[in-house]
Amino acid sequence: MSIEFIVGDRAGAARAGRLVTPHGEIETPVFMPVGTAATVKAVSQDVLEELGVQILLGNTYHLYLRPGVETVRHLGGLHGFMAWPRAILTDSGGFQVFSLNELRKVTDEGVTFRSHHDGSSHFFSPESAMAAQIGLGADIIMAFDECTEYPADRARTQASMELTLRWAERSKKYFEERKHEVPWGSADSTQSLFGIVQGGMDLALRKESAERTIEIGFLGYAIGGLSVGEPRERTREVVEATLEHLPADKPRYLMGVGTPDEIVEYASLGVDMMDCVLPTRAARHGLLFTSEGKISIKQARFAQDAGPLDPTCLCRVCQRYSRAYLRHLYASNEVLAQVLNTLHNLSFYLDTMRRVRHSIRLGEESRSF
Amino acid sequence: MSIEFIVGDRAGAARAGRLVTPHGEIETPVFMPVGTAATVKAVSQDVLEELGVQILLGNTYHLYLRPGVETVRHLGGLHGFMAWPRAILTDSGGFQVFSLNELRKVTDEGVTFRSHHDGSSHFFSPESAMAAQIGLGADIIMAFDECTEYPADRARTQASMELTLRWAERSKKYFEERKHEVPWGSADSTQSLFGIVQGGMDLALRKESAERTIEIGFLGYAIGGLSVGEPRERTREVVEATLEHLPADKPRYLMGVGTPDEIVEYASLGVDMMDCVLPTRAARHGLLFTSEGKISIKQARFAQDAGPLDPTCLCRVCQRYSRAYLRHLYASNEVLAQVLNTLHNLSFYLDTMRRVRHSIRLGEESRSF
Repeated sequence: MSIEFIVGDRAGAARAGRLVTPHGEIETPVFMPVGTAATVKAVSQDVLEELGVQILLGNTYHLYLRPGVETVRHLGGLHGFMAWPRAILTDSGGFQVFSLNELRKVTDEGVTFRSHHDGSSHFFSPESAMAAQIGLGADIIMAFDECTEYPADRARTQASMELTLRWAERSKKYFEERKHEVPWGSADSTQSLFGIVQGGMDLALRKESAERTIEIGFLGYAIGGLSVGEPRERTREVVEATLEHLPADKPRYLMGVGTPDEIVEYASLGVDMMDCVLPTRAARHGLLFTSEGKISIKQARFAQDAGPLDPTCLCRVCQRYSRAYLRHLYASNEVLAQVLNTLHNLSFYLDTMRRVRHSIRLGEESRSF
Repeated sequence: MSIEFIVGDRAGAARAGRLVTPHGEIETPVFMPVGTAATVKAVSQDVLEELGVQILLGNTYHLYLRPGVETVRHLGGLHGFMAWPRAILTDSGGFQVFSLNELRKVTDEGVTFRSHHDGSSHFFSPESAMAAQIGLGADIIMAFDECTEYPADRARTQASMELTLRWAERSKKYFEERKHEVPWGSADSTQSLFGIVQGGMDLALRKESAERTIEIGFLGYAIGGLSVGEPRERTREVVEATLEHLPADKPRYLMGVGTPDEIVEYASLGVDMMDCVLPTRAARHGLLFTSEGKISIKQARFAQDAGPLDPTCLCRVCQRYSRAYLRHLYASNEVLAQVLNTLHNLSFYLDTMRRVRHSIRLGEESRSF
């Protein structure tokens, strides 16, 4: 098997389903915590299991540089290396390479870039990005794409889209030839390759990108090139317009979003998968999501606050510790602040998605969940 | 009740017993992890419970500066503040204040010192150190003492010992008058005050210090002023000579030691309680204690090592992760490295003490455990 996707209930445009992977089943819509360097920063894998995390995201760019694809492959792929038995998705490295700005050079062949660790020079092509992702061995891997910058004019957006389409074909071709090389692969168990729709903020190009990506043929489709600085209404507009052109029977993955409100909103539009560094990164900066809104735990008003972080939350942190204690840990720059804050924010995101799935199953439409 | 100490089995000079506190029972000999700022760095309290930690040590100096005694008292004392239901011991602040070197000034009245955070000026006397420890509300608290520096000549050592004895009397007097002010105190439940034996490396002064401290009368006796730079054989000699003069029916606490070998050795001499930052601090530097000796996990030879950190260890880290993964986390400066390394080292220390207690109960003498 590769993956199997079953849509169960619908509520308006939203759908609740199951995504079956070689490493377990995922209830969708799903939020995928980001485990950049084979770790969700500050949280151990048993805690992630306890939180109900069903799928993690790993970053190919980071893992390629450190510890290196061969090391990960030698340890059994990411699942073995990080001792994570459930599903994993890796990005293609494209987005991170494009974030390097002055350190990269793009040609039709691929991207030359410099490591942010030591300045050493590297090259990613669709083929080498596939090779890296096959070695890392995630359940779901992504075609190599160019994330179009914002803003970009129509000509630039179209040229970038065409490049992504050429790279999508090469990604698929390489993958089909080499997919049996995955560390845990067998005749009846392989990775699944997703295509990425680009097209910037231009709705006609988004439509064209979607149609031509579908023509190449993938097991799932991602919407890339968003959360790159555009206003939020624009994001929603592009997401909505793009979703229209994606097949209903395949998982739809919106990359790199968002706030708790946003993930609820995009799920209501029919997105099945999302990932974002926000809950984990914000946690490390003391920004905590609660049912009463976002809290900056460093504020002096919490110094003697004996109440829980979020009175409605059932996570280990809210069940045990006071705001005063969390504030003290953060103010004292204690590592435990990162551990506990990350645990809570992830719990909040996962609970949010649990509520969304529940509402869809009850047939409740869009903004009500 | 305050504390109750029951010696059970003996093996040579070693003894295994139970120390009953207002917050639970402790099996001795016991190793107490150090939770400097109301947190054992990088480890959450539920993990400490799971590891079988029965008593934690808190540092009065650090907690006095941040978050402040009144905040901790307001949250119910350290037990409430850090959500730790089991026993706690606080040091008197003396050792840490004396570590400040140029930032302090000692008179018979007390010590003026500057905060290592902001340079602000503070004053600890036996009375204010007791007031702080009563507000923090640990089960066991320590008399305010002067930790004699090493090396020190006889005159200096004797003068320092005399100062500690005067401060011990003042500590006890203040404590007896104010001990009902502990946050969780009641008519039949109070803290317990321990005295500290000083006397440097001079065995005659150690004897005198022990006898005169016992005359003042405490519920337990600590051996202070060691691990200050003296050779290890000297430490052993002083510990052995001092223990001879301490009452057999009271807990004996050796402060600030040691390596796994050392804690086994001191337990064999008849020490009941020990604390040390070594397992937690070493962990944060990637130095891990195993049944096969100390390991520096950053070494390149572990980069592709699929084996567990310690094949005989049953802790969560050794049961789940490879040396290669732990090496990657440390090399990548990931917070999870601190979390997992600390968990393992604490597990190793606690297991070591479990084995020591087991051997004593079986009547096995000294170095055999």
